[in-house]
Amino acid sequence: MSRRRQIYEGKAKILYEGPEPGTIIQYFKDDATAFNAEKKGTINGKGVINNKISEHIFTRLELIGIPSHFIRRLNMREQLVKQVEIVPIEVIVRNVAAGSLSKRLGIEEGTPLPHTLLEYCYKDDALGDPLVAEEHIACFGWATQEEMQDISAMAIRINDFMAGMFAGIGIKLIDFKLEFGRLFDGDFSRIILADEISPDGCRLWDIETNEKLDKDRFRRDLGGEAEAYQEVARRLGLFPEGGPSEVADLDSERKKRGK
Amino acid sequence: MSRRRQIYEGKAKILYEGPEPGTIIQYFKDDATAFNAEKKGTINGKGVINNKISEHIFTRLELIGIPSHFIRRLNMREQLVKQVEIVPIEVIVRNVAAGSLSKRLGIEEGTPLPHTLLEYCYKDDALGDPLVAEEHIACFGWATQEEMQDISAMAIRINDFMAGMFAGIGIKLIDFKLEFGRLFDGDFSRIILADEISPDGCRLWDIETNEKLDKDRFRRDLGGEAEAYQEVARRLGLFPEGGPSEVADLDSERKKRGK
Repeated sequence: MSRRRQIYEGKAKILYEGPEPGTIIQYFKDDATAFNAEKKGTINGKGVINNKISEHIFTRLELIGIPSHFIRRLNMREQLVKQVEIVPIEVIVRNVAAGSLSKRLGIEEGTPLPHTLLEYCYKDDALGDPLVAEEHIACFGWATQEEMQDISAMAIRINDFMAGMFAGIGIKLIDFKLEFGRLFDGDFSRIILADEISPDGCRLWDIETNEKLDKDRFRRDLGGEAEAYQEVARRLGLFPEGGPSEVADLDSERKKRGK
Repeated sequence: MSRRRQIYEGKAKILYEGPEPGTIIQYFKDDATAFNAEKKGTINGKGVINNKISEHIFTRLELIGIPSHFIRRLNMREQLVKQVEIVPIEVIVRNVAAGSLSKRLGIEEGTPLPHTLLEYCYKDDALGDPLVAEEHIACFGWATQEEMQDISAMAIRINDFMAGMFAGIGIKLIDFKLEFGRLFDGDFSRIILADEISPDGCRLWDIETNEKLDKDRFRRDLGGEAEAYQEVARRLGLFPEGGPSEVADLDSERKKRGK
């Protein structure tokens, strides 16, 4: 770890300088936070599972032509990605009312929305990632109109693809968060998908029972969060060589041994 | 008062059935509220002044072709307006950062915005009139896209006109709130300006001293709110027959006498 330079430590990931210019290593932690980091904890094995799930989804999204920062997974907790300039806007894609939307607009959680809703939040931890409209984004120059067009078009396509992928394994995609970045090529840049897609930033409900298989288990003290993440990975067909729980246990065992 | 039916009592106005079908009487109260009615009080003579200021602005806006519900002022506290179906969206037009925008996005109050910013809030007292984006308005069908185009185009024109009008009398138009309604003609409806425009829903700063001449004096316990409203009316050339304070005193005198 000492040989490489840490660029940034976030709530769930650490970014290190990559082996070649223009690359970054994303390290997935087990740390979990909620309510703008007011609540903190750990979900055992989460980093291992999210690394695999995010690899899986980003790789699959390439099949429908969604460009992303993902290059390849390096090991259980790390993946190599392209260096981008993150657009300071979180994109929330919602199919069913839940969480902050339900609270803000008084819509009962679980109510299907008349159609897919895109929300934008300004990425600023100190301000609690406030909701903004395209007007704010344009006014303060956080992204150009062309970039927002690319972002919203990609977000809608990603939603369609992921809704189908999860429906195929008995999971309802309630909502999820996306981040995008600018990939520079000389003076030009284009928008690509960045960050991660995992149960940390998605609401995933079992299609039959509505059981929550995502970070809401942690946010709402429902318990069984590690098992929920493992269940998502299992249904996606990941960790066929052994349950993700065993992999996670193995991994935490190694960490204890100081490897 | 007994001869006519009260339709609605809001925080600052009472609506009565008008003399003819399709008309409403707007009665302007002295009651003032702030922070979603957590703070309540009275600004002496406010109703009289706002009735006159709103009449003045709505009448002037007609000159540039902004259609409104205003028909005519009836007396010191009442005006006759066209009955409309209120669009459940408050439009906030901002030229300079202040109030909720400053707080939400961490922008120092008084910072000029790169360009005029339109914000939309969903009108719901119980929810605290939450900020929404055009995506929410479309998703929940609160207004059609065509209506929102009419609304945003009118809001921008109203801002240009009002910014000029206030600049002419030494006042900076920081921000203000608008409401719009649907005027029905058989099955058809068109969007017109409704509600009121007054220091209750505007931020108005003296162009030289930045002294606040609006409801922030009440919200922030600065004192002198009645005098500030009177000063706006005075600069607009209203109440030439006597200061607005005398008119307001006369009016409250009458009320005490039970008239």
